[in-house]
Amino acid sequence: MTKQRSLIRDCPQHIGQEARLSGWVQTVRAHGKIAFFDLRDRSGILQIGAFTPELAKQVADLHPQDVVSVTGIVKKRGENYINPDAVFGDMELEATRIIVLHRALEMPFDMGGKELHVELPTLLDYRSLTLKHHKISSIFIIQAALADQFRKLARELDCLEIFVPTIAAGATEGGSEVFPIEYFEHRAFLTQSPQLYKQMLVGVFERVFTIAKAYRAEPSVTTRHLTEATQMDIEIGFIEKFEELLDALEFVGTGMIKNVSEQHGDILKQFEVAMPLVPTTVPRLTFRKAQEIVSQRTGRDLSKELDLNPEDEKEICEWAKEKHKSDFVTITHFPTKKRAFYTLPDPENPEYSLSYDLLFRGLEILSGSQRIHDYEQLVSAMKAKNVSPDNFAMYLMAFQYGMPPEGGFSFGLERLTMKLLELANVREASLFPRDMERVDMRLSLHNEEPTKTSGQKNQ
Amino acid sequence: MTKQRSLIRDCPQHIGQEARLSGWVQTVRAHGKIAFFDLRDRSGILQIGAFTPELAKQVADLHPQDVVSVTGIVKKRGENYINPDAVFGDMELEATRIIVLHRALEMPFDMGGKELHVELPTLLDYRSLTLKHHKISSIFIIQAALADQFRKLARELDCLEIFVPTIAAGATEGGSEVFPIEYFEHRAFLTQSPQLYKQMLVGVFERVFTIAKAYRAEPSVTTRHLTEATQMDIEIGFIEKFEELLDALEFVGTGMIKNVSEQHGDILKQFEVAMPLVPTTVPRLTFRKAQEIVSQRTGRDLSKELDLNPEDEKEICEWAKEKHKSDFVTITHFPTKKRAFYTLPDPENPEYSLSYDLLFRGLEILSGSQRIHDYEQLVSAMKAKNVSPDNFAMYLMAFQYGMPPEGGFSFGLERLTMKLLELANVREASLFPRDMERVDMRLSLHNEEPTKTSGQKNQ
Repeated sequence: MTKQRSLIRDCPQHIGQEARLSGWVQTVRAHGKIAFFDLRDRSGILQIGAFTPELAKQVADLHPQDVVSVTGIVKKRGENYINPDAVFGDMELEATRIIVLHRALEMPFDMGGKELHVELPTLLDYRSLTLKHHKISSIFIIQAALADQFRKLARELDCLEIFVPTIAAGATEGGSEVFPIEYFEHRAFLTQSPQLYKQMLVGVFERVFTIAKAYRAEPSVTTRHLTEATQMDIEIGFIEKFEELLDALEFVGTGMIKNVSEQHGDILKQFEVAMPLVPTTVPRLTFRKAQEIVSQRTGRDLSKELDLNPEDEKEICEWAKEKHKSDFVTITHFPTKKRAFYTLPDPENPEYSLSYDLLFRGLEILSGSQRIHDYEQLVSAMKAKNVSPDNFAMYLMAFQYGMPPEGGFSFGLERLTMKLLELANVREASLFPRDMERVDMRLSLHNEEPTKTSGQKNQ
Repeated sequence: MTKQRSLIRDCPQHIGQEARLSGWVQTVRAHGKIAFFDLRDRSGILQIGAFTPELAKQVADLHPQDVVSVTGIVKKRGENYINPDAVFGDMELEATRIIVLHRALEMPFDMGGKELHVELPTLLDYRSLTLKHHKISSIFIIQAALADQFRKLARELDCLEIFVPTIAAGATEGGSEVFPIEYFEHRAFLTQSPQLYKQMLVGVFERVFTIAKAYRAEPSVTTRHLTEATQMDIEIGFIEKFEELLDALEFVGTGMIKNVSEQHGDILKQFEVAMPLVPTTVPRLTFRKAQEIVSQRTGRDLSKELDLNPEDEKEICEWAKEKHKSDFVTITHFPTKKRAFYTLPDPENPEYSLSYDLLFRGLEILSGSQRIHDYEQLVSAMKAKNVSPDNFAMYLMAFQYGMPPEGGFSFGLERLTMKLLELANVREASLFPRDMERVDMRLSLHNEEPTKTSGQKNQ
C-alpha cells in the first residue's frame, strides 16, 4: 500500500488517475466475470468496478461491512450509467487491486436499503451495526451540527463555556427522581441538570453556557424521555426586562434549527422533512392566552389545567403555523405551582411565573425562566416546595454575594434532534440510549458486577 | 434606567458621552467628599468616580460584590491619573446616578488584591465567592479556550463530534475504581472514560471526538486527581502507520497550547508563566530510550521500572528543553503489561505496546495508543487482563462487523488547565471539584437524603 489513501470526496480531482480508497463494503453486485460494489468512507459512497475475472471473483467473496483498501483508476461513468440519486453517482473506481483489512460477520438483517427495516429493540441491540446504515448515521451528523450551532449562537450572546459537575450532594432541583451513587462512604446523586451551577456562575461570568448531562430516574418508559440526556444550557445575568430572555431564547432556538436545516438540507430531504418556517418575529402567547386559543379551536375547557399537554402543544403550533407562518411559538407565564423553586413569580400576579417554553412543530424543545435572585425570596421558595436549604449551601451562597437579576433556558439535544427529523422515538436520537430497561443491552441480560484488574494505566 | 446598558469594553467609544454600566463593585476608595470604586462586568474593570458629596456618600456605603447600575460620563483620565496596569486604566466614568440592584454580605476574607490569599479548603468552601476574584476566574477563561481549540483542531482532523453515555453496565476499562449507581432495580456504573464508545463509533464515522466526563473512584487524595474529570477524546480509523497517530496527537496537543497561549498572553503573564516552547518537530522517544536518558542524567537505575514516575517525566522534559528547545516530548512503546486491554502490542516486540504519552513541562497531558481491532485478539487480551467479555457485548460486536485499524488519545481538561497555568493543585482548575472528601462542600457537612417534591416542571 505505497500510494497515499484518498477520500471519496476527493475523487472528482482524480478523474483519469490512479487512487487508493479505503472504507467499508456496502452492497455487492457480482455478475460472473464482472462485479461491482459500493464503498463507503467518512466522506461518501462510490461504486467500485471489477472487470477482470480474478478481481470479479474477489469482489463476489466480499461481505457487507468488510473493511477494504482498493487501488484503481477513477473514471467518469458513461451517460447511461450515471446514478442521479448518489452524490458521486457520475463516477466510479475501476479496481486494479483489492486488499481486505478486516472481515465482517454475516449481516443479521438487511442493511442495504434506503431504510433500515428493524424494530426498535433490534435497532438498539445491534447498535454498533445499525449506526452504520446511512440514514441512521445521518441523525448524528444533525446532532453534532445542532450542538455546534448552539455553541456558536451562545458565543454570539457573549456567553462563556463552563464545565460543571454531574455528581451532586443533593437532588439538583428537588424531586425524588434522582439516581443515587455509592460515593465512597457517602451517598451522592447524579445531577438532574446543570441548572444550579450555571446560576451560581452568573455571579462570576454574567453569561454562561454549557452542554451537560442530565439524569432523570423516571420510572416509566415513554417515547420522549431518556434517563441520561444531553442538555444545552444558557444563563444570562443583568436582565432588565423579561423580554430580553425571550429575545435570547428565540435567537438561539430558531437560529440553531434554521442554520442546521440549511447546512444539511440533504439529510432533511432524506427524512422527508420540510424546511422549517422561521418567522422574523416568533409569536408569543401567555399560557392562559394559549389555552384560550386551544379552547376556541377544539371546544375543550382547559380553564382548570395548570400545564399544556402534548395535544395542546400540537394545537397551538397549528395555530402559529396558520396565523403567523411560523413553526415556532413561545409560551410564557406558566402557573408558578408547576415550575421549579428557582422560578421567579410574576411580581404583578405571583400565581403565574416569568417562565417560558419554546414550541417547535408541536413539541416543547426549550424551557426556562427568569430566576429568583433575592436570597430571602429564594429560601422561602425552597421551603414552600419542601426543598431543604441545607442541601444547597454552596448554591445559596451565590445569592448572598451579589447576584444580578438573571434567567436562562435549556434545550434537550436528543429531543431537538428527534423533532427536527420527525423521529418517532427519542431513543433513535441517542447514539447509546439509556432507559429504565436498557444500558447498551437490555439490563436483564447483564452480569452486574464490575470485573477487577489492577495497576494498569488506561488510555 | 432608560438608557441602554453599555459594557465596559465599549467605553472607549463613548468618551465624552453618557453611558450606563452595570456590574459588581470591586474595591471602594472613599475620601470624604469624593469617592471611587472599581466596577467589574463580564468585559472588564473600570474606575467609577463620585465627585459630589451625595454620590460620594453613596459610594462610601457600597460593599465589594454589591451589584450596581451606574450612569455617568465616560472621561479620559489626566496623564498623572492613568493606571498602566489596568486595561481600561486611562479612562473612568464620572457618575451621575448609582442604583444598587443587589446587596452582598460582608466579605469573609480580602478579595481586593492581585492574589487571593486563602487556603485550598476555603478556596473551595466559598467557591461561588472565590471564583469572582479576577485571577481565579481567569483560570476558566483558559479552560473554555482549551476546549474550544480542542474542538477546532479535532474538526481540522475531520473528526465528527459524538455524545456518548456516562452510565454503563460494566466497568468501562476493567479495574475496580468505579462508582456504582442504583439504577432502578439494577446496579450500573459511571464510565471511567468515553473510550469504549468512541472506539465503537470509529466503525461508523471513522474519525470522532468528544468532550465527556470520566469518573474514577480512586480512594486517595492527591494534587493530580479528581473523581469527576473532563476528558477530551479523539479516535481515528484507517491508521496505516503508527506514526500517523503521533502526528495527530502532536498536532492537537501543541496546537491547543500554542493557540490558547497566544490568545490569552495576558492571563499567562498574570500567572507568571512563560510562553510555551513549541518546536516544529516534537522529539519522540521510546519508553526504554527515555529511561536510558533519565538514567544517564541522574545515575538512577530504571531498568526494572515499567512506567515513568513524576520525577522521570520532569527529567525527560528538562532534556527535551535543553536538547530540542521543546516544552513537549512524546514517549512511545510503554510496557504492554501496564496499559489497558485494548492497547495493541507491538507486533515486533509484544512486551511493548503501540502506546504513547505526550509530556508538557514535566507532566503527562495526553495518553493513548493504537488499539487491538481484531475481535479474537481483543477477546484474548480481555481475558488475559481478567476483564469479562460478557460485560462488553455491544463493544465487542463493533469488532465483528468491520473495524479498521484504529487508535486515539485523550487529554484531561482540568489537568491541562492546571499545567498551562502552573497551578499547584488540579482542584484549582475545576469550577466545582469533586474528590473523596468533597462534593461542593465537604461531605461530612451534608444532609444526605434527597428532598422530595412532586409534579413540578424543571427549568
